[in-house]
Amino acid sequence: MKKLKVGILGATGTVGQRMIQLLERHPWFEVSAVAASDNSAGKGIDCDFVLSGLPSSVAEETELQLAKSGVPVLSNASSHRMKADVPLLIPEINADHLDALELQKKRIGSRGFIVTNPNCSTIGLVFPLAALDRKFKVEAVHVVTMQALSGAGYPGVASLDIIDNVLPAIDMGGEDRKLETEPLKILGKWSDSRFVDSPMRISAMTHRVNVRDGHLEAVSVKLGSKASREQVESALRDFASPIDELKLPSAPRPVIQLESHIQRPQPRLDRDRGQGMAVVVGPVNPCAVLDYKFRLLSHNTIRGAAGAALLNAELMYRKGLIGS
Amino acid sequence: MKKLKVGILGATGTVGQRMIQLLERHPWFEVSAVAASDNSAGKGIDCDFVLSGLPSSVAEETELQLAKSGVPVLSNASSHRMKADVPLLIPEINADHLDALELQKKRIGSRGFIVTNPNCSTIGLVFPLAALDRKFKVEAVHVVTMQALSGAGYPGVASLDIIDNVLPAIDMGGEDRKLETEPLKILGKWSDSRFVDSPMRISAMTHRVNVRDGHLEAVSVKLGSKASREQVESALRDFASPIDELKLPSAPRPVIQLESHIQRPQPRLDRDRGQGMAVVVGPVNPCAVLDYKFRLLSHNTIRGAAGAALLNAELMYRKGLIGS
Amino acid sequence: MKKLKVGILGATGTVGQRMIQLLERHPWFEVSAVAASDNSAGKGIDCDFVLSGLPSSVAEETELQLAKSGVPVLSNASSHRMKADVPLLIPEINADHLDALELQKKRIGSRGFIVTNPNCSTIGLVFPLAALDRKFKVEAVHVVTMQALSGAGYPGVASLDIIDNVLPAIDMGGEDRKLETEPLKILGKWSDSRFVDSPMRISAMTHRVNVRDGHLEAVSVKLGSKASREQVESALRDFASPIDELKLPSAPRPVIQLESHIQRPQPRLDRDRGQGMAVVVGPVNPCAVLDYKFRLLSHNTIRGAAGAALLNAELMYRKGLIGS
Amino acid sequence: MKKLKVGILGATGTVGQRMIQLLERHPWFEVSAVAASDNSAGKGIDCDFVLSGLPSSVAEETELQLAKSGVPVLSNASSHRMKADVPLLIPEINADHLDALELQKKRIGSRGFIVTNPNCSTIGLVFPLAALDRKFKVEAVHVVTMQALSGAGYPGVASLDIIDNVLPAIDMGGEDRKLETEPLKILGKWSDSRFVDSPMRISAMTHRVNVRDGHLEAVSVKLGSKASREQVESALRDFASPIDELKLPSAPRPVIQLESHIQRPQPRLDRDRGQGMAVVVGPVNPCAVLDYKFRLLSHNTIRGAAGAALLNAELMYRKGLIGS
Repeated sequence: MKKLKVGILGATGTVGQRMIQLLERHPWFEVSAVAASDNSAGKGIDCDFVLSGLPSSVAEETELQLAKSGVPVLSNASSHRMKADVPLLIPEINADHLDALELQKKRIGSRGFIVTNPNCSTIGLVFPLAALDRKFKVEAVHVVTMQALSGAGYPGVASLDIIDNVLPAIDMGGEDRKLETEPLKILGKWSDSRFVDSPMRISAMTHRVNVRDGHLEAVSVKLGSKASREQVESALRDFASPIDELKLPSAPRPVIQLESHIQRPQPRLDRDRGQGMAVVVGPVNPCAVLDYKFRLLSHNTIRGAAGAALLNAELMYRKGLIGS
Repeated sequence: MKKLKVGILGATGTVGQRMIQLLERHPWFEVSAVAASDNSAGKGIDCDFVLSGLPSSVAEETELQLAKSGVPVLSNASSHRMKADVPLLIPEINADHLDALELQKKRIGSRGFIVTNPNCSTIGLVFPLAALDRKFKVEAVHVVTMQALSGAGYPGVASLDIIDNVLPAIDMGGEDRKLETEPLKILGKWSDSRFVDSPMRISAMTHRVNVRDGHLEAVSVKLGSKASREQVESALRDFASPIDELKLPSAPRPVIQLESHIQRPQPRLDRDRGQGMAVVVGPVNPCAVLDYKFRLLSHNTIRGAAGAALLNAELMYRKGLIGS
Repeated sequence: MKKLKVGILGATGTVGQRMIQLLERHPWFEVSAVAASDNSAGKGIDCDFVLSGLPSSVAEETELQLAKSGVPVLSNASSHRMKADVPLLIPEINADHLDALELQKKRIGSRGFIVTNPNCSTIGLVFPLAALDRKFKVEAVHVVTMQALSGAGYPGVASLDIIDNVLPAIDMGGEDRKLETEPLKILGKWSDSRFVDSPMRISAMTHRVNVRDGHLEAVSVKLGSKASREQVESALRDFASPIDELKLPSAPRPVIQLESHIQRPQPRLDRDRGQGMAVVVGPVNPCAVLDYKFRLLSHNTIRGAAGAALLNAELMYRKGLIGS
Repeated sequence: MKKLKVGILGATGTVGQRMIQLLERHPWFEVSAVAASDNSAGKGIDCDFVLSGLPSSVAEETELQLAKSGVPVLSNASSHRMKADVPLLIPEINADHLDALELQKKRIGSRGFIVTNPNCSTIGLVFPLAALDRKFKVEAVHVVTMQALSGAGYPGVASLDIIDNVLPAIDMGGEDRKLETEPLKILGKWSDSRFVDSPMRISAMTHRVNVRDGHLEAVSVKLGSKASREQVESALRDFASPIDELKLPSAPRPVIQLESHIQRPQPRLDRDRGQGMAVVVGPVNPCAVLDYKFRLLSHNTIRGAAGAALLNAELMYRKGLIGS
């Protein structure tokens, strides 16, 4: 089998480096070209599709030009995520959002297009929300994050800022806003040629802690219908995805891994589950304010960034949307 | 002026050491005796009152025996906090709870007694809750903590457990339960010879992070009456206490210090405010699930432990309840 | 092929856990029994040989009893290392020291025996010393260590002691003394039924730093004969061992890995080289006081402890000294 | 008394910030102007003298222009330290090097001039060397450093580089070279209108560790004459300086503080001794390679930078070299 050729944008950054690492020995894809993050990134790049780890500042224009020139772009940048015809894709959750591409291609006027993956703190959160929303409806979500240093890229957080410290309100609160809005699009519908947000309400408070990799999140949820603690845990444990049968190389099984010990998950112990692609959820307990509370952990540069973009590519390859 | 003689129990621990440090150059009190935390702790100790930093395992019996022998005990241990006639005292908030001592002395059959201060994570939380409850009533509270290593005592947390990591559910969830129950007693009333809890609902999730001192807490509140963001911040900023006029040596003024920068408070930058006795609260923002959200920080071994017990002693001295 | 049965002593400790991990999927050995570190450790254990990760306090007596009862003991404990007829073995360096076993067995009066591996900080140091001593003679060595937390076992170093800190003189200087004496035995000879120390002089200063795994050492050496910087680097790079041809499963090739970048080796980047069994040595530079200086890094719980004992077992199995 | 007006260059950096902090409530000096580190730094600054915390990249030219315009410049930058007529000053050690200023002023053609203080890792080392050199002559020095993050300025070291890690060869080895050369000038003589280096040989290996403030150094020395361990400790303990009688506000007494516990000094416990201006030296022990070994600690941004420049200013004020 001939492997698809992948171009990596932002190849020198934390996410770009992970992309290259994850493509070593990949069964379907191989890196054919890399570009750093300057303005000319990707110009004349020859490949079947692009994985972009560009910083948002340059991603918007560069990715759009690439798409216009006919290249499928799978991007980790935030620039296009909330656009009206750009899928914010998690294969296990909203594969049907790819239907938006038809419209997008028309707008761009090219067979190229842009598909994005969510922010690294969003992606862990969305899995349990999807599992619970499907069964019980989720009305409200309260989430407090303790996020790893690698989420800020390199050089990112100064050591003098984080030693013996915690830094609140990542990106001056910009991270909170992503976490409050991106899940609504992901858990919403593509219907009548537009995205309709989930009506769920989300309140987020983000923090940077002195951990290398792995975002930990403390979550409380209010459900739309009554459910016992056991039913909630079952819904998480039994979460199945339409893509399970596709056997995508980077898809962990199961994607939600439920831990029963109250002191788990922990970043260092649990971040590498499922080759960094699983979302580890701790035991569920009643919440005195909303209905239930639990913690979750996901590897922010794998499941939350490079691995997310790669899994998107795998899904699209299987569906014939790239490389054919 | 002759200084009161203070006995320190648990003098070799993290809290006991802080007590000794805070009593150096104290205008009213001086250390006259110290005891470690073995079974004989405090036996035959000669002093006007005792500050106890004993671990809970030995505190219950030792402190009771001391009180029975006529000694006022001001304890940081959790053993007696929730007892029906033991004040869980914060001078700025519930000085009237000292009325319970009359009943307690009768039960014990001595002029000695026990007064406790709250858990180190409770104490920071209770200040903004008291300020808001007074003005708007607080119906529900969601709190997620990021707590410092010194809160676990010494040797406490193993370095191998916390390096590149966060530890959830402190004390296997016991800390969460303290944080969900202690504020209800503190913010409740002493009425008809018993404590009546505040009807507030609290949901807590605790975490240990790689920080030496200073507990950071992310808080959301649901208020009983409508209030603008400005009114909420004013209630915090203008919080005044009946004890302000007593000019107690360890009382910071103001006790709640409001920060306007979204990335504050931070443990290392803000823990020493008011000589470690202030509670620093960050800017207030709307919460999409409850009404408002904010962060707070307090120094866990000063305001949250040794300084709390000392301030209790200062209040009781001024009121003639010790040393007279 | 039937695998040899291995008993693990001190199985709950940091080193014991590593031993168990390294024996998963081992081609020759399998764990048949485990025992913790209390006094009865290993009593009646049924196995072909024992790997001991016991703390020194209990190792001396327990290991001796086991040997007397006929069991080969491969120990990581310091108790027997410096005994007159106990090999302090590093397969790549002093395999001939196993000749001492004949005498030891007579003393013990059993077919059982004890073979030890060096302290975790010694083992990394000895490789470059062996390489240089063989070619140029090493007259004097100055070594300053920056050692990882896992070297102190679990719970080991309190987080409050190491956060924002470095701890000098590990084990109150006991570690310095091991580092100054153990290499002399290892690099010495077994001759006329006794060990004759190498005449090399070693000065050591040890430190604990806030790193999970990987001991970094800054080394200066005075050589017995003139050598250029290139010759010194060649001696390190080309270090070959008589056991290379035995193809032992845990033996890395090459065992000394020379790095050319001045800012390497680094604990987090280099500790897992050769599955944690390699010793990474940085570039060699002239020393203004002795002759040359360089840094080295080795994984303290693999090459420096569990893996060291296991490699000893592999060598002895190949030589027919165990399991036959 | 009218206070001298001080201009601060590089005022936004780690060192500049410390300078400003140390000048709050200074009895002789007050900050009159501050400038950041761009090209125009200090242009038209109106003050009695300048403290410069400029980065080396801009310091050379900016400081020279200031001196030419008649302003005394006390600089922490490395640019001018090794110049033939620029004092590399430590008041307690080589106050007589100020004699070089006469020549320097002639060269510059101005009443302005430049005086420098040493690199932050040099300054701690030079104190015990001065004490021992004076009594016994020091022939050779071997030093391995474990340096704090603040020594790299802000943002300086990326948190992703230092978490769970140690970084060797600071500044690609440039720091090692400063440590090997600066003490020779400091401990040398100003004689016949030129600096004559001390003949001492120094070998240095530097490392960055995960500590906020406080450089720890492991030192071995070879002495020119025989001395007992007690004599060496006495020489350190009794180190007296000609400036002791000047009672300079920032001068600690004693400047060398000898610790007797083998596990001291430690960065977090000892860096603030003498308001961060003392050099803490641990117990002296025999060295198997050179003669004696010990550890030292100094606060790198106070004694090692901002406080060093300030103390230089205090000495020069007392001597009538500035402000008159």
